[in-house]
Amino acid sequence: MTINIDQANQKVIDAFMDARPMVTGVAPARDVIPGMHDNLLLHAGPPATWENMSGPVRGAMIGALLFEGRAKSAEEAEEMLSSGKFEFAPCHHYDSTGPMAGVMSPSMLVYIVENTTTGYKAFSGLNEGRGKVLRMGAYSEEVINRMQWLNDVLGPAVDAALKEMGGLDIRTLLAKALHMGDDGHNRLDAASLLYTNLLAPYITKTAKDADTASEIIKFLGENALSVLNPVMAGCKTMTQAGHNVEGSTIVTVMARNGTDIGIRVSGLGDQWFTAPAPVVDALYFPGFTEKDASRDIGDSTITETAGIGGFAMASAPALVTFIGGTPRDAINTTLDMYEITFGEHKHFSIPFLDFRGTPTGVDIRKVVEKNMPPRVNTGVAHKDPGVGQVGAGVVSVPMSVFEDALVAFAEKYGI
Amino acid sequence: MTINIDQANQKVIDAFMDARPMVTGVAPARDVIPGMHDNLLLHAGPPATWENMSGPVRGAMIGALLFEGRAKSAEEAEEMLSSGKFEFAPCHHYDSTGPMAGVMSPSMLVYIVENTTTGYKAFSGLNEGRGKVLRMGAYSEEVINRMQWLNDVLGPAVDAALKEMGGLDIRTLLAKALHMGDDGHNRLDAASLLYTNLLAPYITKTAKDADTASEIIKFLGENALSVLNPVMAGCKTMTQAGHNVEGSTIVTVMARNGTDIGIRVSGLGDQWFTAPAPVVDALYFPGFTEKDASRDIGDSTITETAGIGGFAMASAPALVTFIGGTPRDAINTTLDMYEITFGEHKHFSIPFLDFRGTPTGVDIRKVVEKNMPPRVNTGVAHKDPGVGQVGAGVVSVPMSVFEDALVAFAEKYGI
Repeated sequence: MTINIDQANQKVIDAFMDARPMVTGVAPARDVIPGMHDNLLLHAGPPATWENMSGPVRGAMIGALLFEGRAKSAEEAEEMLSSGKFEFAPCHHYDSTGPMAGVMSPSMLVYIVENTTTGYKAFSGLNEGRGKVLRMGAYSEEVINRMQWLNDVLGPAVDAALKEMGGLDIRTLLAKALHMGDDGHNRLDAASLLYTNLLAPYITKTAKDADTASEIIKFLGENALSVLNPVMAGCKTMTQAGHNVEGSTIVTVMARNGTDIGIRVSGLGDQWFTAPAPVVDALYFPGFTEKDASRDIGDSTITETAGIGGFAMASAPALVTFIGGTPRDAINTTLDMYEITFGEHKHFSIPFLDFRGTPTGVDIRKVVEKNMPPRVNTGVAHKDPGVGQVGAGVVSVPMSVFEDALVAFAEKYGI
Repeated sequence: MTINIDQANQKVIDAFMDARPMVTGVAPARDVIPGMHDNLLLHAGPPATWENMSGPVRGAMIGALLFEGRAKSAEEAEEMLSSGKFEFAPCHHYDSTGPMAGVMSPSMLVYIVENTTTGYKAFSGLNEGRGKVLRMGAYSEEVINRMQWLNDVLGPAVDAALKEMGGLDIRTLLAKALHMGDDGHNRLDAASLLYTNLLAPYITKTAKDADTASEIIKFLGENALSVLNPVMAGCKTMTQAGHNVEGSTIVTVMARNGTDIGIRVSGLGDQWFTAPAPVVDALYFPGFTEKDASRDIGDSTITETAGIGGFAMASAPALVTFIGGTPRDAINTTLDMYEITFGEHKHFSIPFLDFRGTPTGVDIRKVVEKNMPPRVNTGVAHKDPGVGQVGAGVVSVPMSVFEDALVAFAEKYGI
């Protein structure tokens, strides 16, 4: 078989960049995610079993059953979850992406994000804010009540607002935010402000009264990660647009579940290449240390896969106050990522590098050749179920997944 | 007389930095500005007469009389203005600051910004957005109607919101915005988003209905200069806190009126040192050139006087898309300003310079010794009344005003 890898890769990153994700609405997962059913629970990262599932994912699964009203207590939920009654699957198998534990259950509201270039739709839940939250494995009453409020109050008003405004353009929002000190993953302060500002004039009219509108706008505006989930679903539509291109060595999925980390490669279909998830080099919140940390977790690495996040750190020097390091480290991370990517983004640029496009499209050939793994920004969850976030930092994807993928590529294409 | 200039200067910049400006409300100028009266019209910069008044200031004065209902036509307004019936005075003589033409008339609503450290209050009008606006010298029906809407609809709702929230902290807002790609003067994209986000949850409740709330939030959120006026009044409270310190060589006012540019120095009381206003090195809007430009104009240089704006350009590399130049020029401008300032700000920092404090407190000794004038970011108005903005750019304050001030300083203090 004759293949032109560079041509295939160019096609892939063109598809990434031509994707135009629009957030079009919010709906229950069971109504919009193809294949979702009552006993299906989605989680971040590559496949996991109840037995090898990390603490935060277990915690979020427990919380999901409490939220769904399927269990009355954490004990009952655990029993049901270990009984074999439920099917567990990666979000990525269902056109979805979930931050941290990434657990999505049938009744949860999800954002619908459509790549208007192709019509493909991706999904992601509603963001709960920072701290003690389901996605970090917490499931206390406070956590479940907030989830209910998101489902009953915030979600429907945001859905109606999105419909009234005719959808919200995620690519334009990200392009602006990268000029306002965001990396597009771990720092979304500007993007969340932009998001709230675009929604607020509509929420005043779609919320049931002025007090409710006020409460929703305040929640969105004070949560610096409000827009993380639609951003992730937006990035999923970008990378999916470049998936399954014959002969391409570009990574289209990188995801972790606190146990394993896995990647998928455009020219290698739906095969996962996995390794144990690494420990994050993090700045810990007061009272926590590396001993408390879950291993690397979450689908939010879809942002780096699409060319932002850790790859755009040179846009976000103030992020180092949250994850550690210096502004120089932030610039160097971006410069390093140019070494292992196929192209430079035509819509996302970095002012301080003279508006150079962000490094886009991780090429497994370059990663192996340069022996330089992708670096990603991430939050860190507590390793035990029920606790929550303990820090944030930077982590490198293990080299072995790229080596394994390159071997599989060579075998498949006979080179 | 024995004076310790460094000690005096330290006292001045400490006062700048310890000021804590809060936006507390909005009210008609005549009700809150001490000394405001029916026949008083304020303008930007040092003193001006009708005869030597620049086009944009004339245009805004005409607009003000139309807005006040004192004149029925531009012709009638011009006649009244040249009749000697009205008193013209710099905003700075009335604890006020106005962007560009800076015209403030008795019925216009103004922001009240209080330095809670000292109780001093400064004032500034409501921002109209970009383009064809009164502050650029335009006075068409569209301009006057917008001013009316600001006075009748937006202003009262914002006033009630500010009161309900207990005031809004301008220093904290600016500190955040400098970490989000703003310079605090010509680029206030992030600051205006922050401002709108803080106000929106209250405006939903203080506007007369949901549609009005929606309209106000949209206007504030889409105007990247929404917060410029309260920022300027905030900076005025900072620099005023350091004014009139015996023996200090720190500049406490820099302002232009399209004819002249003037400065005041802390240790030299209320004397203006003036020179003809320079022409701005600008990026012009399509269809305009330097031939259309008014000379440098506006009180917004109060931001540079306080240690942000052009002095913090290293925080705002994306600003070069609006004013010309490269990100390297932006960094160099900030680095140069350290050469002529007395200290570094303890609340305003620049991520890319390893969170170094912004250069704060222009020292006339250093300006003269280094032969390096302060550089400021600014908008450019059309030179004729009635047109509006034609560009934006960077300009240096003429050296002669610092030389004159230094001579006066030496004379006063006998050195």
